[in-house]
Amino acid sequence: MNVFDRHRIEQHLDLGVAERWLEEGFIAYSQGKVQAPPVQTFVFAQSNGDCCIKSAYVEGSETFTVKVSTGFYDNPARGLESNDGLMLVLCARTGQPLALLADQGWLTGMRTALAGRIVARRMAPAKVEAIGILGTGTQARMQLAQLMPVTTCREVSVWGRSDAGLAAYRDYAQALGFDVRVEREPKAVAEAANLIVCTTPSREALLQREWIRPGTHITALGADTSGKQELDPRLVASADRIVVDSIRQCSQYGEVSHALQAGLMSPARLVEIGTVLAGDAIAREDEGQLTVADLTGVAVQDAQIARCAFESLRG
Amino acid sequence: MNVFDRHRIEQHLDLGVAERWLEEGFIAYSQGKVQAPPVQTFVFAQSNGDCCIKSAYVEGSETFTVKVSTGFYDNPARGLESNDGLMLVLCARTGQPLALLADQGWLTGMRTALAGRIVARRMAPAKVEAIGILGTGTQARMQLAQLMPVTTCREVSVWGRSDAGLAAYRDYAQALGFDVRVEREPKAVAEAANLIVCTTPSREALLQREWIRPGTHITALGADTSGKQELDPRLVASADRIVVDSIRQCSQYGEVSHALQAGLMSPARLVEIGTVLAGDAIAREDEGQLTVADLTGVAVQDAQIARCAFESLRG
Repeated sequence: MNVFDRHRIEQHLDLGVAERWLEEGFIAYSQGKVQAPPVQTFVFAQSNGDCCIKSAYVEGSETFTVKVSTGFYDNPARGLESNDGLMLVLCARTGQPLALLADQGWLTGMRTALAGRIVARRMAPAKVEAIGILGTGTQARMQLAQLMPVTTCREVSVWGRSDAGLAAYRDYAQALGFDVRVEREPKAVAEAANLIVCTTPSREALLQREWIRPGTHITALGADTSGKQELDPRLVASADRIVVDSIRQCSQYGEVSHALQAGLMSPARLVEIGTVLAGDAIAREDEGQLTVADLTGVAVQDAQIARCAFESLRG
Repeated sequence: MNVFDRHRIEQHLDLGVAERWLEEGFIAYSQGKVQAPPVQTFVFAQSNGDCCIKSAYVEGSETFTVKVSTGFYDNPARGLESNDGLMLVLCARTGQPLALLADQGWLTGMRTALAGRIVARRMAPAKVEAIGILGTGTQARMQLAQLMPVTTCREVSVWGRSDAGLAAYRDYAQALGFDVRVEREPKAVAEAANLIVCTTPSREALLQREWIRPGTHITALGADTSGKQELDPRLVASADRIVVDSIRQCSQYGEVSHALQAGLMSPARLVEIGTVLAGDAIAREDEGQLTVADLTGVAVQDAQIARCAFESLRG
């Protein structure tokens, strides 16, 4: 079995090809053609860590994938990254392990960023005034970079809790060619931007309904486990279109779950991105609409980006 | 991360040490000190294969383990083994991947065989007249070899469905130093042996109550998923002592499940091997008792044998 490290994976992954594979994965998921058993989770209370194991197989594909992701939040004090991870690619015809992608979580970050790109292609307003970013971490960076092929807008308005994080983000975004506005409040981001990406681990709403400009699109990524929340449930419920990666999962713990639990909207309003990509639903009808994408992360994304990386790495 | 192949793992694993680690794992499991999320499973209908992912963490230990096992039953026609597998060992303090044990399923076979040894130490009659083995596959071989430290008996009576399998098993057991009797019926095994190990994937009872000699111990390993069965439920229910690896799991699909579903016995009669090893229950009180061990396989065994292998391999 081949072992590939993060550097080689980054060198070989073609992001345009990966985007197409991810789209195919979302479509297969929404068509019921993906086996994805329930996620396994561990909590390591003594070391302030957790681990989840996500596995998926797209019916008919040559490989399937097992992903192990860890988050150990005292790691930075030891000089280590908080997040680590790897993906195993196995042959769906013989069961043989084919490759270990020791990507340290990079592929997970990238599949999440490319999902942001995929929804923005269908949901962003035609004229993006400014991109808004909540959060200054790895995903806040990856999202901005992966939005660049979607829009010519090079204005970004960013909010985060840490001054150091904001300063570093400013440098990062400027290096990408952006004019950067650092904001003291999420409200200022909402007032400046009409394509907003929320990337924080917040447990309370950061964006309120009344702040949002007409025609804005918001992609929310942070609510990836129970208890997390970035959007006012009234904001979610009032959107003209609500696209999710997984109706089942987002109903359990995405942004959408809060609006559903509060009785503010019907689950019948939810549309999966795979259904949009298959041409069976429309994500945005006109420039005046407020649209929301709630992305909690599904294992088929891991299977697809791992397949894509493996295909390029084996040459 | 280090990758170790099967050959190196076999060379380094000390079976006596592994046996003690497995005992500690069973004890921890029965004391509720093991995190083991539900098993993930895949079915690959087109290629006649399946995969399961078992993960476990023993509270307080330095590592945790994710195991991927595959069975692809058309593989022999391609010149490949049906079963393959690997174990990932990760650090429970930082989440970092420490080792990939590319054991091709050998560690799973060995932890199962050592579990057979562990129960035989507590449950086999003092005087073993003959060892009885149902099945002629890998586990049938490993069980016999791992029973050798438990008894001085070197008589084995074996039954299997395939003449070629029986002939090969005879050669294998003779090379270990056994006198081998090849039997045409399971009944003949029951009549000859008072320490019997059942290792087949049978879906119907192979051993009937009335055939069993007084004082016999039977270890049944085959019923590792729903629908499998090797023992007459009346035989299970009439045993003087019934030891299981997991009360929860064996009640779902072990030999015990059939007797419970038929209303032949109370679940209160089940005792876990971890409880016996902790000294909180007795597995055999006298030489006249009929005892049964129902081992369905629990993920803590994987975590413990992987830890043990990793400790010796890293030197």
